[in-house]
Amino acid sequence: MGTSEAVLHVLSGAVPQFLSSDMCSSNSDLVFYSKCHIKSVKKKGSRRLPSLKCSSMSGCQIGSYRCKRLGGGLHGNTAIDRLTLLRCKCQQAESVSGVDTGEGNGAWFVDNAKKLNLNGSMNSEDILEFKTVEQLKRENEVSMLNGKVGTGTNTIFTGGVDSVEDEAWELLRASMVYYCGSPVGTIAANDPTSSNVLNYDQVFIRDFIPSGIAFLLKGEYDIVRNFILHTLQLQSWEKTMDCHSPGQGLMPASFKVRTVPLDGDDSATEEVLDPDFGEAAIGRVAPVDSGLWWIILLRAYGKCSDDLSVQERVDVQTGIKMILRLCLADGFDMFPTLLVTDGSCMIDRRMGIHGHPLEIQALFYSALLCAREMLTPGDGSADLIRALNNRLVALSFHIREYYWIDMRKLNEIYRYKTEEYSYDAVNKFNIYPDQISPWLVEWMPNKGGYLIGNLQPAHMDFRFFSLGNLWAVVSGLATIDQSHAILDLIEAKWADLVAEMPFKICYPALEGQEWQIITGCDPKNTPWSYHNAGSWPTLLWQLTVACMKMNRPELAAKAVSVAEKRISKDKWPEYYDTKKARFIGKQSRLFQTWSIAGFLVAKLLLADPNAAKILTTEEDTELVNAFSCMISANPRRKRGPKRSKQTYIV
Amino acid sequence: MGTSEAVLHVLSGAVPQFLSSDMCSSNSDLVFYSKCHIKSVKKKGSRRLPSLKCSSMSGCQIGSYRCKRLGGGLHGNTAIDRLTLLRCKCQQAESVSGVDTGEGNGAWFVDNAKKLNLNGSMNSEDILEFKTVEQLKRENEVSMLNGKVGTGTNTIFTGGVDSVEDEAWELLRASMVYYCGSPVGTIAANDPTSSNVLNYDQVFIRDFIPSGIAFLLKGEYDIVRNFILHTLQLQSWEKTMDCHSPGQGLMPASFKVRTVPLDGDDSATEEVLDPDFGEAAIGRVAPVDSGLWWIILLRAYGKCSDDLSVQERVDVQTGIKMILRLCLADGFDMFPTLLVTDGSCMIDRRMGIHGHPLEIQALFYSALLCAREMLTPGDGSADLIRALNNRLVALSFHIREYYWIDMRKLNEIYRYKTEEYSYDAVNKFNIYPDQISPWLVEWMPNKGGYLIGNLQPAHMDFRFFSLGNLWAVVSGLATIDQSHAILDLIEAKWADLVAEMPFKICYPALEGQEWQIITGCDPKNTPWSYHNAGSWPTLLWQLTVACMKMNRPELAAKAVSVAEKRISKDKWPEYYDTKKARFIGKQSRLFQTWSIAGFLVAKLLLADPNAAKILTTEEDTELVNAFSCMISANPRRKRGPKRSKQTYIV
Repeated sequence: MGTSEAVLHVLSGAVPQFLSSDMCSSNSDLVFYSKCHIKSVKKKGSRRLPSLKCSSMSGCQIGSYRCKRLGGGLHGNTAIDRLTLLRCKCQQAESVSGVDTGEGNGAWFVDNAKKLNLNGSMNSEDILEFKTVEQLKRENEVSMLNGKVGTGTNTIFTGGVDSVEDEAWELLRASMVYYCGSPVGTIAANDPTSSNVLNYDQVFIRDFIPSGIAFLLKGEYDIVRNFILHTLQLQSWEKTMDCHSPGQGLMPASFKVRTVPLDGDDSATEEVLDPDFGEAAIGRVAPVDSGLWWIILLRAYGKCSDDLSVQERVDVQTGIKMILRLCLADGFDMFPTLLVTDGSCMIDRRMGIHGHPLEIQALFYSALLCAREMLTPGDGSADLIRALNNRLVALSFHIREYYWIDMRKLNEIYRYKTEEYSYDAVNKFNIYPDQISPWLVEWMPNKGGYLIGNLQPAHMDFRFFSLGNLWAVVSGLATIDQSHAILDLIEAKWADLVAEMPFKICYPALEGQEWQIITGCDPKNTPWSYHNAGSWPTLLWQLTVACMKMNRPELAAKAVSVAEKRISKDKWPEYYDTKKARFIGKQSRLFQTWSIAGFLVAKLLLADPNAAKILTTEEDTELVNAFSCMISANPRRKRGPKRSKQTYIV
Repeated sequence: MGTSEAVLHVLSGAVPQFLSSDMCSSNSDLVFYSKCHIKSVKKKGSRRLPSLKCSSMSGCQIGSYRCKRLGGGLHGNTAIDRLTLLRCKCQQAESVSGVDTGEGNGAWFVDNAKKLNLNGSMNSEDILEFKTVEQLKRENEVSMLNGKVGTGTNTIFTGGVDSVEDEAWELLRASMVYYCGSPVGTIAANDPTSSNVLNYDQVFIRDFIPSGIAFLLKGEYDIVRNFILHTLQLQSWEKTMDCHSPGQGLMPASFKVRTVPLDGDDSATEEVLDPDFGEAAIGRVAPVDSGLWWIILLRAYGKCSDDLSVQERVDVQTGIKMILRLCLADGFDMFPTLLVTDGSCMIDRRMGIHGHPLEIQALFYSALLCAREMLTPGDGSADLIRALNNRLVALSFHIREYYWIDMRKLNEIYRYKTEEYSYDAVNKFNIYPDQISPWLVEWMPNKGGYLIGNLQPAHMDFRFFSLGNLWAVVSGLATIDQSHAILDLIEAKWADLVAEMPFKICYPALEGQEWQIITGCDPKNTPWSYHNAGSWPTLLWQLTVACMKMNRPELAAKAVSVAEKRISKDKWPEYYDTKKARFIGKQSRLFQTWSIAGFLVAKLLLADPNAAKILTTEEDTELVNAFSCMISANPRRKRGPKRSKQTYIV
């Protein structure tokens, strides 16, 4: 069968092809072979979505994404023999992925296969580097015990740790999660003192971001690349709750590498990647931020590693587009902001942030700018790019204009007239001035300002949400003046927002009946705890990026030094409680990976401020112009029946 | 130029064509001609959307949907002469609309033109029936004054009114709004005592529904047909707020017929249809329910008039599909329910109904079933119908399972465990039992139950919302048992829900700090007023349809008799205040059209229960089967990578 014939057959899905996947390994048997199945899947609603399944040996586990792990090393040689056969077959498959410019993500294993074949056999570096999670866990637990019975100093690791930073690196490496021998992420928490695992043994997309950035800044690109490509695979999964499926582009909140017994073989196990899209999550919240963070990390990977081949891949381009389509889909809403339910981002429990929360909008804006940089022109992306540009302009106008408050604006709201029915209403959202809480009147500094947490009809959420404000600075969603004003406010309100541990997730806490009504009596989100104005060390990294962008590193350095005094001694908790962050959080995990990674990223950026550029985005001239046009435009003039190509039948 | 050649030219948009539109009239000049322009409009995002503009005479007002009104009757004869010329041209245009299976709504004037030509000239009935709104208003005001200085009996009209029902009919007819001589809707309120018009001089889509049903049941189909086709035109309008456009399928909340001076001609005016999609509305809320009601009314029109030609038109089919696409668009959400902001339905101000309010879900389900009946198979609608069916099943499962409460379920929630992380969690939404309010413990009757108002992560809104529950009965979203239980609850809670005027919009009111926090201190929605547990006479009609469907007319009759005692005497107010509905609402309009029409529909249905069938829908066997499959299915089993056509590359 000639190549072109084979390609034709592959396209029609009729001919078996060999592909290599990542290596499947166990402690004793590092080498054996695996097979890949690219399936053509008919999605409900007719779009054809190729999906990908990898399993070792010949057993086809339908409907899983797994890698078998065998009890014995019997198949090693066969495997290598077979791998050498893969070369041309893989190239055929690559052609397929090149031809298939559709909406699936069926191609990423191709690169791995190619890599294997270029070496002529298995990549030995990967094999040597391999350590199972279990091994690392055991080592870690031993270390912890040493730490606990030890001297109570920072040095809880016995071997060669001489600074908080070194300790953090050791812990971060110990949190790495492997799938078929390759690092694919970091576990959410590695707390040996906690018996209740819940879902802290998973790789969370949003939690991995600071880990990924830390690895990038350290020049360790593989784990980030693997993470990006594996999560991309999971995007194509069937995700349902009671038979309802969210949009195809939705990225999972988390995934887990499971080792399960191999069907029909007691002595063998296999590894399975098991994503959660919110179907199992507490409260069934969908992770809207996952896809946005994924795009941001993808761009950072390219900028940092100079390896643009990942973002240029057809499957990756498709992944970007699927996320964008989900975000840019037509909706009922009058606002350019994304409409979400409560708990769809870092605050993943009910906290009254339903609607158009700032955090999601800042990440949305950031992801749009990042995607615009990465999207390759041509083949049907023109419409998407046009929609993206329109949204960028409308979004930045909306947030800068309607979310911004400072003393001047607050005084304006205080004097709002209500019930204005007109296109030119000043109080467009019909905000009742009585909504201005007493705390805000006192709290707003004379110098500085911030973006409010949320805006809905007749509703301004005046709470200060940190991540949204910081990322608005990082992404340029806030203007330069606004960005400086946000940092000014942080300086002015240092005692509230940093106090004894940076950084409050939001300010102030919901208390009393407000807590009852808005959180639904959530016992985890009691006032000044957890999401309800708890302090989260991981936010250090976003603070640092924002400070670096605005060339105010001293602010970040001050925050890092506050954290450094306690964080290692306190065993890297997930969050702190009380108004001044004096206590380790009530239900806080210890050795929370993103607390560790967040600290490391802050340290790395302080050492090399220029590196923050992999995360920041700037408004380009085109957008600035479009924006100023909009400011000066009369909204009323824009109305009328749809028209642009005015061809008439008279 | 031959016909086929003309068609080709029309398709390319190059050749002028004459079309007749509705007649443009003023008091003195009933007859003159008008021209229609079909424009090919390039929408942002590349879909080609033909839009339509009608203006009389030769002046082309670009970007408007208007009809000129001339000062003198000079053009009468010319107009009729020209109309006779239209015959073949219109047929050409009809071919165009047949060919144009795209996404625009450019075809509806064709039927009017045909009608005119079949008569050989203007439709004389229309001319004779014509009365300007201004004339009717003047008559009405005189009548009101008579009523006020009169005896205080129900008879406020002097000429031949002998019952509340007759009075209602006169008032309803007086509320009719004309555009270019044809009735196109009814004004929201016709209150001569109110100086502050705000937006009560508009035709609201949702407010027109009972008017439309009343006219249908009376055999007066034209106004409904015109309303359907005119609002369909408005759907294609450019709708923007600060340059952001909501989805193309969004129907306006309301429209207004404006008479404006004709540019460059002091003696002439023209009529313009001016829609509002929420860009001018208080709080900028988008009317999600408009399109859903539009579909429901369209089906009722066909069922009642036996004229299926309207729903079969290409432009109408396109309109249905655009609404469906907007509703069925991919989203992030894990739930099959529609995610909306606060105030997107009858409760169009902030009332804590953001998220997945029952009213929207019931209308959504109803509209899906209605659309399924009306969609013509073929040309690309198969995917839409598949998506629609999937959604119907998932939606009914979700609502029946998770929104339903009665004593048994409430006791179950009371004993919920929390923080369950798993696929099989009982307390899927992580509801804290403390959310069960004290009022509910007392209020829930032993017999009966209802669907809660909203369900979000960690959030059940336990308030009873009437329209959502009633329409869940009407549409069959509630099971038969649940439907009876809802009516049982209404009977059991008659003193709360009906009292001295049917029907409470919701129960109970938000009071104290809850009112402050949830409504944002809305002075119009104070406890037991307006949307905050006020009593709305219009809800009589939905109550009656629900009772007729469940064959319990006595319940509706009882409610109607309560209303009949006061409603005319009180001058048909929009709403009543206080716990027992003893006062006419604080800011309530008098002569609110949907109070009048709601009463009439209830009366008409009591006289002919069978007529309720134009509004009710039944679950078909196919859905029932799919539903029972789902109930027995294990959600966990459904997970895995996308697959259905399992073609492998091995």
